[in-house]
Amino acid sequence: MTGFDMSRWSQAYLRSVEEALSSWVHAHAPAGLGEAMRYAVLDGGKRLRPLLVMASMEACSQGRSQAWMADAAMRAACALELIHAYSLVHDDMPCMDNDVLRRGKPTVHVQFGEAQALLVGDALQTLAFELLTPEQSDIPPAIQARLCGILARAAGHAGMAGGQAIDLASVGVKLNIDQLRQMHRCKTGALLEAGVVMGAVAAQALPEVMPHMLQFGQALGVAFQVVDDILDVTADAAALGKTVGKDAANDKPTYVSLLGLDAARTEAARLEEQAQVALSQSGLKDTQALQALSGWVLQRQN
Amino acid sequence: MTGFDMSRWSQAYLRSVEEALSSWVHAHAPAGLGEAMRYAVLDGGKRLRPLLVMASMEACSQGRSQAWMADAAMRAACALELIHAYSLVHDDMPCMDNDVLRRGKPTVHVQFGEAQALLVGDALQTLAFELLTPEQSDIPPAIQARLCGILARAAGHAGMAGGQAIDLASVGVKLNIDQLRQMHRCKTGALLEAGVVMGAVAAQALPEVMPHMLQFGQALGVAFQVVDDILDVTADAAALGKTVGKDAANDKPTYVSLLGLDAARTEAARLEEQAQVALSQSGLKDTQALQALSGWVLQRQN
Repeated sequence: MTGFDMSRWSQAYLRSVEEALSSWVHAHAPAGLGEAMRYAVLDGGKRLRPLLVMASMEACSQGRSQAWMADAAMRAACALELIHAYSLVHDDMPCMDNDVLRRGKPTVHVQFGEAQALLVGDALQTLAFELLTPEQSDIPPAIQARLCGILARAAGHAGMAGGQAIDLASVGVKLNIDQLRQMHRCKTGALLEAGVVMGAVAAQALPEVMPHMLQFGQALGVAFQVVDDILDVTADAAALGKTVGKDAANDKPTYVSLLGLDAARTEAARLEEQAQVALSQSGLKDTQALQALSGWVLQRQN
Repeated sequence: MTGFDMSRWSQAYLRSVEEALSSWVHAHAPAGLGEAMRYAVLDGGKRLRPLLVMASMEACSQGRSQAWMADAAMRAACALELIHAYSLVHDDMPCMDNDVLRRGKPTVHVQFGEAQALLVGDALQTLAFELLTPEQSDIPPAIQARLCGILARAAGHAGMAGGQAIDLASVGVKLNIDQLRQMHRCKTGALLEAGVVMGAVAAQALPEVMPHMLQFGQALGVAFQVVDDILDVTADAAALGKTVGKDAANDKPTYVSLLGLDAARTEAARLEEQAQVALSQSGLKDTQALQALSGWVLQRQN
């Protein structure tokens, strides 16, 4: 691992991801929709999902890299971020979490009104699938179709949207740890897992590598949510860029409310360890960026 | 055209479409999301978009039909209907049209609450792309990717969602006929047009046929909206299955408010004539179902 500079690696990709998002989420969409979509997506966000896609693509390409692979990975990275962004816009709406602050800015419905926020979320979701199916491209159609399928399964009723439905139904309800884990595996984990898998697909990863990447993504995804629950009670709004203590105030079950703070921290560390084991079992060599991202998930303060 | 029985043709396909929707929009999704999705999609709806896909597939296959084409067309038909259904669920919400009646039933947010309605719409949109990318299938990946791309472009910021943004911004604003036509081409036309084109793609239509199918779809799509505007002032709620006079009450520009009722009727007839011309120029033979659907758009009472 000597010689790998994570800060430099992530800065370079963060710049490319921002540029790609800015060019793909353009202001052309009519009646202010384009500007509102850009407001929802640009200038903020940790871009963890895009970075996971790029890191996974790099790790899995193993020197077999082709020009279209970088394009496929960047499209997958941005598509995933658009799905994430759409879910935040809709989550923040008054009928859901009724949040007014996101990434330190007024939420989309506060800034543009509820009706426009609804459309922004809808159009961002659609744009994700548009990015994955460019009209002119060297990306093999089989890769395009597979990326669409993985993204749809991760974002839909059996993934993120399903997890949100469980979340909605669980207010004031006593879940056990398995139910909580299942909810979070859908709600947050599915997209992070999809990031790892889509990066692998974009790099045409060898079939024997895929199960390990899947395991890595699963463990990382749940760990992310456990840390989220911890930060909801320990962080301050300025560092987090959003309202804190919302889950407790809304009587939502969290790892912290269920296990207590110390046990939640132990759970996060256990999941991160699982992720590292999966990665070493993959037999892949260039996994430094994936390892660093996984470490960051545990250590992050926002 | 002797011997073609449109009623029989559409009954058979309507049955298959309902069966396919019922099996694909299953109740498995957690926390009541599946049931609410089924409520939004099943047992109602004219299924014009699915029928257009099937009619277009039949016309374009010209005896070169293969087993996977019917599967691709049925998936496209249902995916399109899911996009349509999601748009209705979100449109009916209090922050948009605030409608309480749809297809003679309480709207989804009335029945299941606003938060669930938001998730239902979101998950239906995702499911559309899941249907187009089956994990096991004989549909060539290039066809899958192309269908995803067409659907995304028709549903997104440059299509349906963009049209809705124009619609939102046009309340109380004086549009001219060109602006109104552009709004409706996006808002309603794009999906109907996509239906015709997706059916053609599912049948691997010859390249020289495609522009005519596109023209047919475009004319039909705008004609549908003109007739919608006419029905909003002439139909009664029982026949229409939804609240009438909403557009006028909401001070939304329509073909009727802009042109008057008679001129709107003339416009609808002109567009239907355009559609028929495009169809005859396509050189396709088995266009009876497409012709009948186009005639129905003009004659419909709901």
